[in-house]
Amino acid sequence: MRDDGGAWRRGAGDAEDGEDSFGSIIEGRQPVAEALRAGRPIDKLYVVRGARSAGLARVVSEARESGAVVQETDIRKLDSMSRTRAHQGVIAVAAAVRYAELSDILEIAAASGRAPLVVVCDGISDPHNLGAIIRTADAAGAHGVVISKRRSAPVTATAVKASSGAASHVAVARVTNLTASLGELKKSGLWVFAASPDGDTPLWDAELARPAAIVIGAEGGGISRLVGESCDYAVKIPMFGKLQSLNASVSAAVMLYEAVRQRNRA
Amino acid sequence: MRDDGGAWRRGAGDAEDGEDSFGSIIEGRQPVAEALRAGRPIDKLYVVRGARSAGLARVVSEARESGAVVQETDIRKLDSMSRTRAHQGVIAVAAAVRYAELSDILEIAAASGRAPLVVVCDGISDPHNLGAIIRTADAAGAHGVVISKRRSAPVTATAVKASSGAASHVAVARVTNLTASLGELKKSGLWVFAASPDGDTPLWDAELARPAAIVIGAEGGGISRLVGESCDYAVKIPMFGKLQSLNASVSAAVMLYEAVRQRNRA
Repeated sequence: MRDDGGAWRRGAGDAEDGEDSFGSIIEGRQPVAEALRAGRPIDKLYVVRGARSAGLARVVSEARESGAVVQETDIRKLDSMSRTRAHQGVIAVAAAVRYAELSDILEIAAASGRAPLVVVCDGISDPHNLGAIIRTADAAGAHGVVISKRRSAPVTATAVKASSGAASHVAVARVTNLTASLGELKKSGLWVFAASPDGDTPLWDAELARPAAIVIGAEGGGISRLVGESCDYAVKIPMFGKLQSLNASVSAAVMLYEAVRQRNRA
Repeated sequence: MRDDGGAWRRGAGDAEDGEDSFGSIIEGRQPVAEALRAGRPIDKLYVVRGARSAGLARVVSEARESGAVVQETDIRKLDSMSRTRAHQGVIAVAAAVRYAELSDILEIAAASGRAPLVVVCDGISDPHNLGAIIRTADAAGAHGVVISKRRSAPVTATAVKASSGAASHVAVARVTNLTASLGELKKSGLWVFAASPDGDTPLWDAELARPAAIVIGAEGGGISRLVGESCDYAVKIPMFGKLQSLNASVSAAVMLYEAVRQRNRA
């Protein structure tokens, strides 16, 4: 169904680097500069606080341009992350997959001939949950998953594993500003449905057969205020037990499969 | 909705024992004998292979009577599990919750005035998945969860945590023979629906508003042959992606919420 593979599709992480809960670690000015030059996607760049060398400044500006989150940090944190003990003040965390652009996801949807179906993660910080959401998005035939650069776990090796590998098939866009991305999706004709325990639209009244973006909030805090204001509908999944919320990946599954049901029964 | 609390409802694990991925560990003949006498539920008893003492034999027989799985094992395994280095040839793994009986679940269903809705786990070995299933069962208003003694993870501290505490509210029955339990459920008027990638009943054609037991198979192997033969319907959740299966807790969520939908629309 999604056979218009693009450059984003190929996993970018090779096994040569250390893998940990962050993803792959690249240490030292030269190795990081080379990775950036090779177009290898970097999730995050840690750089020693107060660094003054011109070489390091160039790496930082290139990383920032490539879309990486740059964080100044203590030398001790770098030391503790380092495996080579030769980080030279900079450590990059490489992405475990090549990210898509939001426009890729819209193109994939258009090529599918079906109404767009996109999952938007607002602050999913647990890579297991993110992986599970990506896996279910694949199963439900969603066209892509959008995560935010600063408030979400990136697609780490752990997330790829939790996705059972689906993260290599599903387009995942990592965006700087989730609210702006929701605006773009709306401009492209999608309706934005947020899963929310305080929602006023019962799940089965949400018209999910329409072009739809489904927003799933953080495990603890739910959907952030700004993102919430960008949503067209706040959808309540009915709950009958003692607990007040569902696991984020379960919310995504229930919303996605209700969309699938409506689309197949339409 | 489920306010007919029974003895099973109270968590049995106190924090005084070591907690690990197994649950709470009780070591030594006397402490284990006392725990059994106090009615503390034991998931599993490890006893040194070839033990001959009468005291140990009594502990083993009492544990077996209480429903524990008894496993003869190497002294080295006991040594490696032991924290006190004084296990005296026996280590009990205490349950993190008090289990219900299958009959409790049927009574809870009858008292609810709604059509019974029960989740049956066939070999869910990952406590995170088991916990997630229990949490969703709570949310969907299911009357209980059935797991098997030998083929499932017991409700460990990890599972309780993954359930966000729902494991203390939802009745979980741990049965010796899952096929026999399905027979009992059928005798009580429940229809048995297995989630299966090879199923011939499309999800939305499954009549889940009827009294229903939903069987979820193991993460890897799916539903075992004998259990499969006891099911009335093999239900296929439609999948449109590259992967061939859903996460077990996601399958449970999709099936349970389709049941909720049908029951609320009926």
